[in-house]
Amino acid sequence: MPGYSVCVVGATGAVGQEILKVLALREFPLNKLRLCATARSAGKKVAFGGEELTVEETREWSFEGMDIALFAGGAASTEYAEAARKAGAVVIDNSSAFRLNPDVPLVVPEVNPEDVRWHKGIIANPNCSTIIMVVPLKPLHDAAGIRRVVVSTYQAVSGAGSAAVQELVAQTRAVLDGQTYPPRVFAYQIAFNLIPHIDVFQDLDYTKEEWKLVRETRKILHEPDMRVTATTVRVPVFRSHSESINVETERFVSAQEVRELLSRAPGVVVVDNPEQKLYPMPLDVTEKDEVFVGRIRQDPTLENGINMFVAADQLRKGAATNAVQIAELLVDYGLL
Amino acid sequence: MPGYSVCVVGATGAVGQEILKVLALREFPLNKLRLCATARSAGKKVAFGGEELTVEETREWSFEGMDIALFAGGAASTEYAEAARKAGAVVIDNSSAFRLNPDVPLVVPEVNPEDVRWHKGIIANPNCSTIIMVVPLKPLHDAAGIRRVVVSTYQAVSGAGSAAVQELVAQTRAVLDGQTYPPRVFAYQIAFNLIPHIDVFQDLDYTKEEWKLVRETRKILHEPDMRVTATTVRVPVFRSHSESINVETERFVSAQEVRELLSRAPGVVVVDNPEQKLYPMPLDVTEKDEVFVGRIRQDPTLENGINMFVAADQLRKGAATNAVQIAELLVDYGLL
Repeated sequence: MPGYSVCVVGATGAVGQEILKVLALREFPLNKLRLCATARSAGKKVAFGGEELTVEETREWSFEGMDIALFAGGAASTEYAEAARKAGAVVIDNSSAFRLNPDVPLVVPEVNPEDVRWHKGIIANPNCSTIIMVVPLKPLHDAAGIRRVVVSTYQAVSGAGSAAVQELVAQTRAVLDGQTYPPRVFAYQIAFNLIPHIDVFQDLDYTKEEWKLVRETRKILHEPDMRVTATTVRVPVFRSHSESINVETERFVSAQEVRELLSRAPGVVVVDNPEQKLYPMPLDVTEKDEVFVGRIRQDPTLENGINMFVAADQLRKGAATNAVQIAELLVDYGLL
Repeated sequence: MPGYSVCVVGATGAVGQEILKVLALREFPLNKLRLCATARSAGKKVAFGGEELTVEETREWSFEGMDIALFAGGAASTEYAEAARKAGAVVIDNSSAFRLNPDVPLVVPEVNPEDVRWHKGIIANPNCSTIIMVVPLKPLHDAAGIRRVVVSTYQAVSGAGSAAVQELVAQTRAVLDGQTYPPRVFAYQIAFNLIPHIDVFQDLDYTKEEWKLVRETRKILHEPDMRVTATTVRVPVFRSHSESINVETERFVSAQEVRELLSRAPGVVVVDNPEQKLYPMPLDVTEKDEVFVGRIRQDPTLENGINMFVAADQLRKGAATNAVQIAELLVDYGLL
C-alpha cells in the first residue's frame, strides 16, 4: 500500500491532537507526517506511532510535497489554506471559513461522500453539531423525506477548546469549595450551570452555531430549502455533544422502523432499550467514532413525526474522525 | 388580618423546606403552623419566623382544626390526603397522585386561578417542568392560539431530592480526583454527564415526566387536545430547570410582540438581550419565584413559530411557591 504525505496544521490543539490519534488508530497510509502550529507551539515534541515529531511553525512553504493538508481549525485556515492548495495539497479544513462557499464541498462521508469528487483543492469539514445530526438524519431522509427538524443541543465545553476544559475543572473545584472562579473562556460560570449561547449572535437573534445547524445541514443533504430550527446550549460536560431532535417526515415511519433503518446505517449505533435503561449519554460515547441514537419515539403530535436523542464525541466524529474519513475517501476514490 | 392553621406534610424534605421558606417570605397569614413528616424525621427541630417548631409524625389525626394541608409530595399524599380532606382541611398536594383526577383542580395561579373554586377538598400542584412551561405559554396561547409545542428540558438534580444533590457533590469531587463514585440516586453517573431519562418509562417509550408535560399542560390550559411533545433530560446542575421550547401558533406573533406580551405577563420575567449577552440561566434564577424567558426568536421554518429558552427554580415556582400561591388564592377568594 502506498503512503501519503500529510501535513496537520494546528497539531497541538484539542482537535489537532485528536486528528493524530485518529490517523494512528485508523492506520491511515502515511508516507510522511508534518506537524505545524503557531510560532508559540513550534519546537514542541509530539509522539506519533513510536516516533517523536517536532512541531514546526506553519509557513507558506510548509505544504511543498504534501498530498493532504489537514487544518484543525481557527485562523490558520484563512491564512494558509490557499497556500496549501497552491502547493498541490488537498486541503481538508475544519474551520467554518469555507463551509458555505459554493466552490467547496462540505462532506460527511456517511452522508454525501460523492461530493469529494468535485473538490477544487479545498474540502470543508462541517461543524461538530451538524455532523452529529446529519449522520442519523440522512437514512431517515432517504426513507421518509424530512419535512422539518427542531433541534435543541447539549454541548460539551471541549467544543470551546482546551482552555474551556481547564476552566470547567478549576471552576467546579472552586464552587465545591465555596469559592468563586471568574469565567474567562465562557461569558458566565459554566460549572453547575447552562449557557444558552454558543458563538456570536447573528440574524433573527440566532447564534452562528444555530445557523450552522440550519445551513450546513441543507448543503450536506443537498436540500437548500430544508426546514431546520435550532437552539444551542452549553452544558457542564467535558466531552461529547448531545442533541434532542424532533423530525417531521413526508411519509410515515414507525419508531421501530427508524430503529431498524438506523441500525443498518453507516456510522450510527442505536442504543435504545428503555426497559434496560439503555440510551445514549455523553460519558459513554466519548472517544468513540460513531453517532449514538436512542430515545426513538413516535411523535403523536404529528401525522409523521419522530423524537430522538443523539450523542457523539464532537472531537472525534464531530471533527477529527470526519476529517480523516474524508482523507480516506480521497484515497479510495483515487483522487490523490 | 385573620390567620389560618396550616399543616405542612413532608416538612423536612427539599420541597417541604422551601414551602416553609416561601410561607415566611410571602408572609402568609398564619394562625398555627404544624410540621409533619415520617417517623424517621419526627422530633426534629425546625426554625420558623424566630420560633423553633418540633416535627411530628404524620397521623390520621394530624389535620384536626387545620384550614390547609400542604403536602410536599411523595407517598404521604396517597396515605393521608383523604384523612386531611375529611378533617376539613383543604389539601394542596404536590405529588402526582391526584393531578389528572377529573375531580381535582390542577392549578397554576397565573394561568387558571378560577379552577380553585370548584375544588372538592383537594387541589393538585402540577409537576415542576409543567409549571415552568405553562406560565409563559398561557399569554402566548391567549394572544395567538397554541397549535403545537416541542419541548426539550435541562433538569437540575435537586428535582430528584436532597440525596441527589449530595450525590452530585460527592461524585463531582470523586471524578475530579480521578476516582469513581457509583451512582445511587441516579441510574448512571450524573457528574459531567447527561441522563435522558427522568421517572419511569410509559406508553410509546416516553417517560412519566414527558407525559406529565403533555397531559398536565392540557388540563391546566383547558385544551384537552393541545399537541405537546417532550424530551426530558437530567443535567449536572444543582438547582433550577431550563427548557428549550418551540411553539407553533394559529395566528402570527413576532418575536418582539412575544417579548412585549411576556413582559406584561404575571409571574414572567423577560431576560432577552443578545447584544448584552442576557438570557436566562439556572444559576441566575435560583431562589427566585418567577419564570425567566429569553432567546425569544421567530422560527422561520413555520408560518407562525417561536423559539424560546426558559429557566426557573423548580423548588420555588416549580413546587413551593406555586403551592403557597394556591393557598393565597383560597384566602383571596374567601374559600377557607
